[in-house]
Amino acid sequence: MNEVIAMHRRAPGFHPGLMTDMYHPDSAYVSWRTGHNGLTTFDLYTRTAPFGGAYLLVAGLEAALEFVQAFRYTPEELKFLANIRDYDAAFLDELANLRFTGEILALPEGSIVFPNEPIMRITAPFREALLIEAGLLQAINLSTLIATKASRIVYAAEQGRPRRVAEFAFRRAQEPLTVARASYIGGCASTSLLNAAYEFRLPATGTVPHALIELFSTEEEAFEAISAAYNRYTLLLDTYDPRNAIHTAIAVALRSQETLGHTLAAVRLDSGDLVADSNYIREQLDRAGLENVRILASGDLDEWKISELLQAGAAIDSFGVGTTLGSGAGSIEQGVSGT
Amino acid sequence: MNEVIAMHRRAPGFHPGLMTDMYHPDSAYVSWRTGHNGLTTFDLYTRTAPFGGAYLLVAGLEAALEFVQAFRYTPEELKFLANIRDYDAAFLDELANLRFTGEILALPEGSIVFPNEPIMRITAPFREALLIEAGLLQAINLSTLIATKASRIVYAAEQGRPRRVAEFAFRRAQEPLTVARASYIGGCASTSLLNAAYEFRLPATGTVPHALIELFSTEEEAFEAISAAYNRYTLLLDTYDPRNAIHTAIAVALRSQETLGHTLAAVRLDSGDLVADSNYIREQLDRAGLENVRILASGDLDEWKISELLQAGAAIDSFGVGTTLGSGAGSIEQGVSGT
Repeated sequence: MNEVIAMHRRAPGFHPGLMTDMYHPDSAYVSWRTGHNGLTTFDLYTRTAPFGGAYLLVAGLEAALEFVQAFRYTPEELKFLANIRDYDAAFLDELANLRFTGEILALPEGSIVFPNEPIMRITAPFREALLIEAGLLQAINLSTLIATKASRIVYAAEQGRPRRVAEFAFRRAQEPLTVARASYIGGCASTSLLNAAYEFRLPATGTVPHALIELFSTEEEAFEAISAAYNRYTLLLDTYDPRNAIHTAIAVALRSQETLGHTLAAVRLDSGDLVADSNYIREQLDRAGLENVRILASGDLDEWKISELLQAGAAIDSFGVGTTLGSGAGSIEQGVSGT
Repeated sequence: MNEVIAMHRRAPGFHPGLMTDMYHPDSAYVSWRTGHNGLTTFDLYTRTAPFGGAYLLVAGLEAALEFVQAFRYTPEELKFLANIRDYDAAFLDELANLRFTGEILALPEGSIVFPNEPIMRITAPFREALLIEAGLLQAINLSTLIATKASRIVYAAEQGRPRRVAEFAFRRAQEPLTVARASYIGGCASTSLLNAAYEFRLPATGTVPHALIELFSTEEEAFEAISAAYNRYTLLLDTYDPRNAIHTAIAVALRSQETLGHTLAAVRLDSGDLVADSNYIREQLDRAGLENVRILASGDLDEWKISELLQAGAAIDSFGVGTTLGSGAGSIEQGVSGT
């Protein structure tokens, strides 16, 4: 007989006491049996900086400390442990009462740190230190990796003058909320992900997707609809042909400015020859008296590509970066190891 | 004046209606104003397979469907939207009542799929399809990437005969719960992360960390303590020198078998020359009549390194894989795009 299993969960539960590899409670048990539980210090640090760089930008402290504060075992969780391991009941009793009583020294979020410098130093009785080690590493690892990547991208974008970088990583990020937060610490100006903007009070920005342009029979109709809906709006130029689209965009912008008082804030290029197209588009905008309209570029960018574009003279005022930022592309080291 | 801000959250909240990029509600608003809301179909598929491979192993359907089922806007979330965008109130009323009414066709989790084959096909009124698109992509992207990586690693490990692969990715994984679940779908035999074992009812396995060996004054004392604590146990050989450690391990194993009836199930190598050391260790174990003790290897392994080790004749019975599995190393494409 086939039974249909009803789905009832919305997302996996977060169980701080179980955010540990099995060998940690196993080791804690050996420590408990043998009475070894002296004060232990472990440092979180890296041996090298990620992305072939020299530094890391520390982030993730908030999540790390929330994890430590929340760390405990519920009766349900202890029952689970008892089911999968043959621990002595008295050890489980100790776990039921275990809270972190140690000391944590850490660099503030947003600090620059170099390889072999401790990011965080934990001093606690051996079992406490052991049981929280992996959870702390996980919290610091990802955030520090992404904040470092963001700072490199923002640095590349700000050659000569400030240029904003918007984090557009949601659909490509493995953990998009953490990515949005760490990207902001790393210098990004905004996130595209509303859940992150809501949770962390970050500025949310967005442009226009190709799907919206394609919803209308003509690009002009789409541009008209967008310009009518918002008093400041962005138009996406590369759904069909950006050099055609800029003329339509300018005509729409001038009309909507006059009839509705609505302002074209920016145009976006998401593909094509970003150097040549951005210069062509800048020229057309300036000729039409739209000197304040910014050109935003996106599409598989990273710190290296952004540097190249700007060195080649691209007329780009801001960047949207997704995949490489959200995945920490360019490093599988993920930054941090503990000892 | 500096104020200390109290930390009260344990983890960021999950708001399905806000798990979207800002340009999606922005586009939905344009669609609402212009009355364009016809049935729309979009496919999730990939243009290429990740890791230079030919196929993908689909995973993430459960999280994707839970997201769609949970999709809605609470009054609090609508207030947030009204604060950051000047949407018409009637549009927000529509969002308040919006539920997914469309149709989703999808391949079952664990299916093999090739580039350009749809993994999932969504047909729904334009606004519904648009608002859930990025959240679906995010759910399928990560799980499919990791399941595919896991299947490649398991395939590499099973040359000639079955060899178990344990997922050890927790501290290096960006989203460790999803990684554990997808790795299991991809063929891993177990996870080291207890939270994942608890939530998804997966087998949990673990070995011994270096920190436990270092807790004792001598390696022998550590091995004795471990062998006394568990009726089946694993010993870690490379804290100091594996070729020395195997002799200590054998002596401890024979003693604990005789006095306690406890069995050495496996030894683990986490560094060093895995080919030469594993063969030396196999020889010593066999000589001591411990033919059933398995040799587990770990330490920055991936499908390529596992293939090389086995082709070079390494005497390894199972593998623990962490970083490369948890980060989907070898692909920043992350598998899936939508159209």
